[in-house]
Formats: sequence, structure tokens, C-alpha cells
Amino acid sequence: MNQRRIRVVQWGLGAMGRSMAQLMLDKEGIELVGAVDALPEYDGKDLGDVLGTAPVGVPVTADPDQVLPGADVVVIATTSWVEKQLPDLLRILSAGVNVVSIAEEMAAPEAQHPEVAARLDAVAKEHGVSLVGVGVNPGFVLDLLIATLTAGSQQVTRIEASRVNDLSPYGQTVLSTQGVGTTPEQFAAGVADGSIVGHVGFPESVRLISDALGLGVDRVEQKVEPIISKVRREVRDLVVEPGQVAGCNHTAIGYRGEDEVVVLHHPQQVHPEAEGQSTGDYITIFGVPEIHLSTGPEIAGGIATAGMAVNTVPRIFAATPGLKRVIDLPVPTALMGGSAYERR
Amino acid sequence: MNQRRIRVVQWGLGAMGRSMAQLMLDKEGIELVGAVDALPEYDGKDLGDVLGTAPVGVPVTADPDQVLPGADVVVIATTSWVEKQLPDLLRILSAGVNVVSIAEEMAAPEAQHPEVAARLDAVAKEHGVSLVGVGVNPGFVLDLLIATLTAGSQQVTRIEASRVNDLSPYGQTVLSTQGVGTTPEQFAAGVADGSIVGHVGFPESVRLISDALGLGVDRVEQKVEPIISKVRREVRDLVVEPGQVAGCNHTAIGYRGEDEVVVLHHPQQVHPEAEGQSTGDYITIFGVPEIHLSTGPEIAGGIATAGMAVNTVPRIFAATPGLKRVIDLPVPTALMGGSAYERR
Repeated sequence: MNQRRIRVVQWGLGAMGRSMAQLMLDKEGIELVGAVDALPEYDGKDLGDVLGTAPVGVPVTADPDQVLPGADVVVIATTSWVEKQLPDLLRILSAGVNVVSIAEEMAAPEAQHPEVAARLDAVAKEHGVSLVGVGVNPGFVLDLLIATLTAGSQQVTRIEASRVNDLSPYGQTVLSTQGVGTTPEQFAAGVADGSIVGHVGFPESVRLISDALGLGVDRVEQKVEPIISKVRREVRDLVVEPGQVAGCNHTAIGYRGEDEVVVLHHPQQVHPEAEGQSTGDYITIFGVPEIHLSTGPEIAGGIATAGMAVNTVPRIFAATPGLKRVIDLPVPTALMGGSAYERR
Repeated sequence: MNQRRIRVVQWGLGAMGRSMAQLMLDKEGIELVGAVDALPEYDGKDLGDVLGTAPVGVPVTADPDQVLPGADVVVIATTSWVEKQLPDLLRILSAGVNVVSIAEEMAAPEAQHPEVAARLDAVAKEHGVSLVGVGVNPGFVLDLLIATLTAGSQQVTRIEASRVNDLSPYGQTVLSTQGVGTTPEQFAAGVADGSIVGHVGFPESVRLISDALGLGVDRVEQKVEPIISKVRREVRDLVVEPGQVAGCNHTAIGYRGEDEVVVLHHPQQVHPEAEGQSTGDYITIFGVPEIHLSTGPEIAGGIATAGMAVNTVPRIFAATPGLKRVIDLPVPTALMGGSAYERR
């Protein structure tokens, strides 16, 4: 059994990328060999300078060619969108390096971009490497965990799940994309002009569930609605008055013909407890057997996305060539051992 | 893509085996081509006669050679014990057929029988086929589901989980092996002479969790204790008086050195609600993030074991040769589609 450490490049050093880089520095089975970021002021620095720590001996570069040769896996955190990430993905795959992406659309790129997915699959196979998109949601709580819950199910007729979180810890950018603090009219205008997006990843989650179980979903409809507060809610210097918008209630329904077979809810707001709502993940599988699951609080989003990306490194390194989804691989699990891929 | 149905033989037609056979008859992606059982009165019958249905055109035989040729997968339900199942497993593998077993010890046979596990692995590879052990527990709720819950975990320091069920629906054989209705003295004597066994599968679950996460568990200790009822509990014609035993509280602790890193509880009793205990599965992952999960009621045991075995058929058919654990494969999921293995 090969015990060498997996050589990884972190691509993208925003908040998520820095978090993943720090985590990988702490994992015995992973050797972080470089980082890529387009910011000119990072170019040529030691990664420790970017992380605000002592030097770690890992170079940061704006030129991928400096670090891709000899790498086993790139973990990329640059955007939510497949088409925007495509040039970087093609460059990495063509260099013969595997990829873990946290772009939401990459969790199941065939859901909204089938031609891009086919191209990524072909290029990966041509170069004998694999790629996968993961994250807490999509990629884990509202799809992989649901699929796993059906491991013993004899029949599944309908799935309904909800992820209730609190946006209070997040910055202004996130609050803006969920419409926090707007009036109902401003919210409607923001949805219309694309500045209020709600959750990114529902078509991908529905696709993962449908494909994993063979549910035959043929159509996904989404609704983005304001959560109008009945009470005053404060977040730092932002006040949501009664009648204003505390967040965004995003729902996706996957239909097979006229039947609703997958219904996913993701209400994201500041201080849900102000109106008595507990944060958590709630999943019901209707069928044989019927299963009701809850977590409380919700599985922490930012932490789990970074963890998921890092935990997937040994899975994509061991995978057969091509485009994978998380449901196609043995489940990623916390990497607590010395060798990241010492498995039978 | 090959769309032919997977050809399966059901081996063992006890209660579980009959349930799995019936389920497979209903799955479009599976073709049940035969059934094996040693009972002379079943030999030569149509499976429908054994199931109590109309004829289904599937032969039941006491002679495996009648049905193994041409089969893709055998689902075997004959015993809990690896060594007892070994001759049948070797015969099936040697015929070039993959195996899904619900023997509890087969969930991780290396946990208690490393030489047998090594032999099964070698024979499977020699014949180009694979085998795996699954079930609701071990194989799903207290190991695979726990491992999946850590998919986004950055650190895991300790895992504690409990599965609380109600034995009331089970027959006298199950109640006896859990000591229901005994006095505390009779319970102690039953544990000593092996007639009261508690749960079978904890060393296997701990091994699966430890291997999946790399927790380095080096020792498993188990405790089997009576659940002494404070109230009168009735099950059909059996009465448990206050002071008598309502069931068995089985605990396993996996240690790394002196640290308890995995703690699993499985109190099995009749009518737990009589003393205010709700049935359910309860999992806590201590680490980053901390995760608290519960289901209520518990994921139904008998149904989910049969479902898990059938849902694993396409996974073991697609696996590389050798002995697998459920953590080594993409998670089994409910088979609701037309083709049991139409996956990318």
C-alpha cells in the first residue's frame, strides 16, 4: 500500500480557500504543495503571509504552471458557477491533475449545463484524472445525506427536507444576496434584477437525489420568497423592522410528471429564533420505512463546506477517470488518520 | 450502457430471506433467477409456494449448482456468524458470483476473524468477484450513517450514538436472546452460558467507523446489562413484572489508547415508552463542527435490513473484485428506477 501523502494545490484564497488551506496544513495525509490566486499582491508570497501565520513553506502564485506539475489534486474555490470556472477546470485537468470544486453548480453540472458536464467528463478521461463538486449544500445535507438515509428503504414515494439556518454570522455580501433588510418591494425588484439570488444549488441537489434513487424527476421548479419579519431583528448595524425582510425562503420542487417527489426548503434569515424557529436540518422520507431525521442546530455551513472539500481529496485521488458526483464515490469522511488514503 | 437486469439468487428463505425475495420480485432492475434453501420440503417448489403467493416462475432448490451458473449476485441470509457462513460463501465466490450477506459479522469480518476475511478477499479476487456484508445494524445506522455525518467534519474527537428500539413486535426467539422476562439472576446466567447474547455486530460497527475516519481504535470493550423494569410490561402472553428484565442494554466502547473515541449503545427492550423512553436513533459527533442527529422512531430494523441487502445488489455487482465493506462502496440507496445499475 502506497503511504505517500497526497500532493494538493489550493486554488483560490478567499475566505473559503484560506480555511481549506489551513485545514490541509493540519492534515497528516495531505501535503499542501502550492496555492494559486489571481490577486497580484499575493503573488510570490509564502502562504503563511496570506493566512496571517508563521511561514509554512508553501508558495502562492498567480501562475498555475508554477505549482500544477507534480500535484495530485487541486481544490478549487473561486466561484459558484460552472461556466465561470470552466477555463480553470480544463487547464487543471489538461495538466493531469484531479479536481475537487466547491462551485455549487459543480455538484451536478449536468443539471443545468449538460454540454459542459460532457466536455469535463471527456477531458478528464482523456487525461486519466477525475473531478467532483462538493460542499455542505449542495453536496451533503440536502442530497448525499438524504440519499444515504434511504440505504435501507424498500420504497420511496416522496422526500421533503428543510435546512433552517441563521445568517447573522455572515457578512454584508451574503445578507444582500438574501435580501436581508429590504422592503418587500425592494426584495421583489432584487429577485427580478438578479441581485437577490437565494440559495444556489437546488437543481443540483434534486438531480443528485433523483439520480441516486432513480426517482425519474423530469422538472424542477423553484420559488424565492421574502421572509417578512413580524418582530424587530438586529444584526450589527443593520436593523430589520417589522414588515421588512429578514431573509429569503427558497423552495425547490422536483416533479415526476405531475407528482411532487422531492421538495426542498432552505429559509435563510437573520435570527430565526426571534420568531420561535429553531435552526436545524429536517428530512422526511415517505415510503417503506418512513423516516424522520433532524439535526439541531444545522450542520455548520462554512465549516462543513471546507471540511467536505478536504475530506473528498482522497476519494477523488482514488477514483476512476471522469466527472463524478459525490453519490458516485464512497462517502467522504473526516480525515483523522495519518494517511489520507490508506484504505483497503 | 448495459441495461440488462441483474440476475440474483436468494440464498436462505427464513423470514428475512423471504422478505428480500419478495422485494426483489418487485424491483424492475433485478431478475430473481432462483432461491436456495436447505429445507427438504422447499426443494423443487416454485418460490411463490414458499412466499404464499401465486407462482412466480422462480425455482427453489436445495442444490446451489442448479441456480448459481449464470447468476450475477447471491443475497445470503442464513446466519449471523462468519465462520458458520464461510463454506457457503466460498462455494458462491468459487462459482464466480458476487455476494451480499446480511450476516452481522460480515459487515467487517476482519474485526473478529481476520484470517477468514483475508481468505474471502483472496478467493473473491481469484474469481474476479466481490462480496460485502450489510444490514440495518451493523452496516447502516450505527456505522455508515455516522461515517456519512462526518463528511464535512474538520475534526472528530469522540462519537457517541444510541439506537433505542422496541422488541414488542418480535417473536419469542428474539425476546429470549435479549433476556426479556427473566429475573436479574436468570439474565446473568444467560449471559454467562451464551443464551442471552444482546446485540450482534458492535465490534464490526466500531471497526467500520474507525477505519472510515482513521480514528485508530485499538480495543473494543462490550457490556451486556439487564434493563430492569420499574413497571409491568405485557407482550402478548408474556408479562414482565416490576423487578424483572424488560430487555438488554448492550454498550460498546472503542478505545484509542486510554481514550474512549467511539461509544455505542443499543438498549433493546419491550415497550420502552412504558418508562418514558422514545424509540429512535441518536448520534452525536463531537468535534468541528459538533453534530447532533436524531430520528424518531428508529429506522425500522427488519424492513431496512431487507432493503439494504437488495439496494446493495447493484453496488456489489459494479465493485472491483475482493472483500468490501459498505464504507468502501458508493452508498446504497433506494432502488426506485427501472435499471438497478444505470449509473454513470
